[in-house]
Amino acid sequence: MHRHFEDELNNLKEQLLKMGSHVESSVGLAIKALLENKTSLLKEVHDLEQKINRDHMEVDEACVQLLARQSPLAADLRLVIAILKISTDLERMGDQAENIAFNAKEYLAGKPIKQLIDIPSMAEKVQVMVKEALDAFLRKDRELAKKILEKDDEVDALKDKVFHDLIERMAQAPDQIEQALNLILIARNLERIGDHATNIAEDVIFAVTGDDIRHGSNIEE
Amino acid sequence: MHRHFEDELNNLKEQLLKMGSHVESSVGLAIKALLENKTSLLKEVHDLEQKINRDHMEVDEACVQLLARQSPLAADLRLVIAILKISTDLERMGDQAENIAFNAKEYLAGKPIKQLIDIPSMAEKVQVMVKEALDAFLRKDRELAKKILEKDDEVDALKDKVFHDLIERMAQAPDQIEQALNLILIARNLERIGDHATNIAEDVIFAVTGDDIRHGSNIEE
Repeated sequence: MHRHFEDELNNLKEQLLKMGSHVESSVGLAIKALLENKTSLLKEVHDLEQKINRDHMEVDEACVQLLARQSPLAADLRLVIAILKISTDLERMGDQAENIAFNAKEYLAGKPIKQLIDIPSMAEKVQVMVKEALDAFLRKDRELAKKILEKDDEVDALKDKVFHDLIERMAQAPDQIEQALNLILIARNLERIGDHATNIAEDVIFAVTGDDIRHGSNIEE
Repeated sequence: MHRHFEDELNNLKEQLLKMGSHVESSVGLAIKALLENKTSLLKEVHDLEQKINRDHMEVDEACVQLLARQSPLAADLRLVIAILKISTDLERMGDQAENIAFNAKEYLAGKPIKQLIDIPSMAEKVQVMVKEALDAFLRKDRELAKKILEKDDEVDALKDKVFHDLIERMAQAPDQIEQALNLILIARNLERIGDHATNIAEDVIFAVTGDDIRHGSNIEE
């Protein structure tokens, strides 16, 4: 029975990591399409989003089954709850990647703005956060999870800068308003992906240590 | 033991509904502040967001405890899983209300745009969705939950219209760009709150019937 539980839990972790790799691809493709002007990649983002939605339902169902059959306790129960939550965040990231693809498509169809401001560096930071959040889960790495929380502040600061620069541009060149708005919405979605990576990091800490550091309740540790 | 479980479950439902009422107040106050030019209400939105964050942790912890102590099965297990998910959506709604409050504060500090376009009717629809999502949970009302899914399409259409109208305004009056952007971001947050209400409706259907209709897997029924 115990052996069986370990097997089921390992399968579940693998399912979640597979879902995570779909999300990484999806975010990466949406950004690549924007930065390298490759609209052909956007269809793949949509296909991945569909796949991620199926992953989400499968992971959830596997969690429910495992809870029902095995009634895990303590650390194992926390881990299954964390997986349920992480799969929700991953699914939302898939939605955000789809949103980025939508605005990238609109943007690439119009006249480009001279430079993409800080969006490339913002995108890079966010992608690292997503990768590290999944690594932290895989390795149960509390320290790495904590580092992700710090990176989120940097991403938020970049987003503020992008907003500021683009609002200025809109005022200077009213014919670029729609294009600038597309970029603002892309920056907003990148920021949200960073937020979800942060949620995952918090869930990893919760699963590993039993601490609930969300909402700053224990963040000073 | 069984009686004890029913008591715990009822407590948990009450906790969730209390959290829901905080979210309703929070969204309502953020909108009221914007529509009636009452910045004094915005502090309350922030206080409620803190309260909602605490509610979220308490509901999650109660779910974990209940799963650990009672190992519920079948319908009861599904209900607890649904409550875990609903509390996450409610917490995110609290964040969105806080975002609306932030942009409302910026907006109200500047020169108002002549009219708020379709934002008032969008806000009203979203508030009804939130209320109905909680009612559907309370009454285990599958039909009401399904109606919420339809309303979400109406909200999305209104958001597109708001975006369109405000982009036009930005082009006509570049000095109103920042103000129009505040309203665009408010519309976006309202749309997101509608999405979360939709998620809750889907979780209610999942808990009541065992169907997983998310991502359209069973939507044709």
